[in-house]
Amino acid sequence: MQSLIGELFFKAFDNPLLSQGHDSASLDLPLGKIAFTTDSYVVKPLFFPGGDIGSLAVHGTVNDLAVCGARPLYVSAAFIIEEGLEMETLWKIALSMGKAAEACSVRIATGDTKVVDKGKGDGLFINTAGIGVIEHPVPISPKQIKPGDRVIVSGDIGRHGIAIMAVRSGIDFETEIKSDSASIAPEAMALVSGGVQIKCMRDVTRGGLASVLNELAVSAEVSIEIDESAIPVREDVSAACELLGFDPLYVACEGRFVAVVHPDSTNLALQILGPKSRCIGEVQSQGEVAVWLKSCLGTRRVLALLSGEQLPRIC
Amino acid sequence: MQSLIGELFFKAFDNPLLSQGHDSASLDLPLGKIAFTTDSYVVKPLFFPGGDIGSLAVHGTVNDLAVCGARPLYVSAAFIIEEGLEMETLWKIALSMGKAAEACSVRIATGDTKVVDKGKGDGLFINTAGIGVIEHPVPISPKQIKPGDRVIVSGDIGRHGIAIMAVRSGIDFETEIKSDSASIAPEAMALVSGGVQIKCMRDVTRGGLASVLNELAVSAEVSIEIDESAIPVREDVSAACELLGFDPLYVACEGRFVAVVHPDSTNLALQILGPKSRCIGEVQSQGEVAVWLKSCLGTRRVLALLSGEQLPRIC
Repeated sequence: MQSLIGELFFKAFDNPLLSQGHDSASLDLPLGKIAFTTDSYVVKPLFFPGGDIGSLAVHGTVNDLAVCGARPLYVSAAFIIEEGLEMETLWKIALSMGKAAEACSVRIATGDTKVVDKGKGDGLFINTAGIGVIEHPVPISPKQIKPGDRVIVSGDIGRHGIAIMAVRSGIDFETEIKSDSASIAPEAMALVSGGVQIKCMRDVTRGGLASVLNELAVSAEVSIEIDESAIPVREDVSAACELLGFDPLYVACEGRFVAVVHPDSTNLALQILGPKSRCIGEVQSQGEVAVWLKSCLGTRRVLALLSGEQLPRIC
Repeated sequence: MQSLIGELFFKAFDNPLLSQGHDSASLDLPLGKIAFTTDSYVVKPLFFPGGDIGSLAVHGTVNDLAVCGARPLYVSAAFIIEEGLEMETLWKIALSMGKAAEACSVRIATGDTKVVDKGKGDGLFINTAGIGVIEHPVPISPKQIKPGDRVIVSGDIGRHGIAIMAVRSGIDFETEIKSDSASIAPEAMALVSGGVQIKCMRDVTRGGLASVLNELAVSAEVSIEIDESAIPVREDVSAACELLGFDPLYVACEGRFVAVVHPDSTNLALQILGPKSRCIGEVQSQGEVAVWLKSCLGTRRVLALLSGEQLPRIC
């Protein structure tokens, strides 16, 4: 079985690096600082509208590199397979992974497979680590965030989480809501090369927009005020959230990011990101750490960090 | 719980890279080709004589880099935790990982934690990816192997597998057999810097010495003849194998490697590796792909690749 699986991945990821047949891949990197990241994917179910665990595992790691201003180059792919997983399922996921990697211009450079006994896993877990190169001098980090900076979101939020929950709950919405799972690298790279004064970027995943904003507020030691009416949520997502009892601000995306930019760069950033993007708020005082939501009715409330996970195993 | 776990790892791995609080770690790499590798660890039990899943996850990935002639620099650490795992267990493992990383002179640069529901994992799985730098021009690869080359093993084999099986089977041997789990990077680096004409190196893990030799024979398209009497197996390991019904040639190590070297370099290599090491055989004809074992009685038989795993979840 081990060798069967090996062959399967070689075929699906077909590239000369994997054929080196060695314990590590040997890579020539361009000059520059390197970004290095890792994520495991335990999403349930393995397939969902708009993607699967394989494409998600590529996009997620590519996005973690891109929001640090790095151009994604290589990913690793490690599989923990529960005994009994259908070979056809694995094949579909591997193909989807190979396709996603190609679309993201990254190469799957190295991999690993472990099989665990039935009942000791859950079909399939995937880990991807990623290497990217930082080819510009712009310091992108929460520490750069200052009062007056604007907060931009790259597109409508909440679709990944709703796509997963729809499958899990078995509810049919009027329109099928597809995950937004995708690489945000082209958009992030375009902001950098377009001369936007980026302070920080972060992809919106587990915990949704509210969690990302809270993490940024804590790291930068600032307060952030967000305008509820400016936050892009599709009508069908909003309706689904209501039905399922979720707040869209806490629902995961997998193809959206937040960019905090110097106020002078706001319009340029919005122009580069296109009509899906919105300026949703601004950084306020340094010292007070909080995220404030100005509601559509004009009231102001703290957008707290959720204490638990609203949706476990969303990615 | 998520934030508790986060704090736990920050404490255990205490280093400035992790405190960047960013989606990727930003690293300055020395010039040279880069080696990149990944492995997941699903060993059962989590703790065993001589190590645990944490130290193993560091050593295994460090060793995959080192056998490619790379100096290990950075590892990632991703945890898939089954709900209900004791925090104290996780803490012990994280500490052990941090200690192993320090001993190996590598930094844990980036990490991830996922929690899966009870019954959907098995306590803990760890993935580590690793980055190393190749600072010399020696081409180390199975393709370099030629007839006449000598096969050297860096020390006695089979201890890791027996240490695990002893715990699993509940058998008490007269002496406790400890896993050999350790970094082989200093030894591999010493061979390179000592001027040994290395053709290829490979760490002996799953499937043991026999599997490594078979993999090398296939990749290099050669036959290899091994002298049974030269293979170092400790007496207690040999006795335990007999008791448990295993062939030590197929039992995993986690701190041993095979080096295939030019015949002129044999003595130099043995001298650098010290008295634990042995020259166990040589590469024969090109074209025929097989591993031959010359037994203590003078007979010659093919040392086949095992079709299944003799010991599942050994690493």
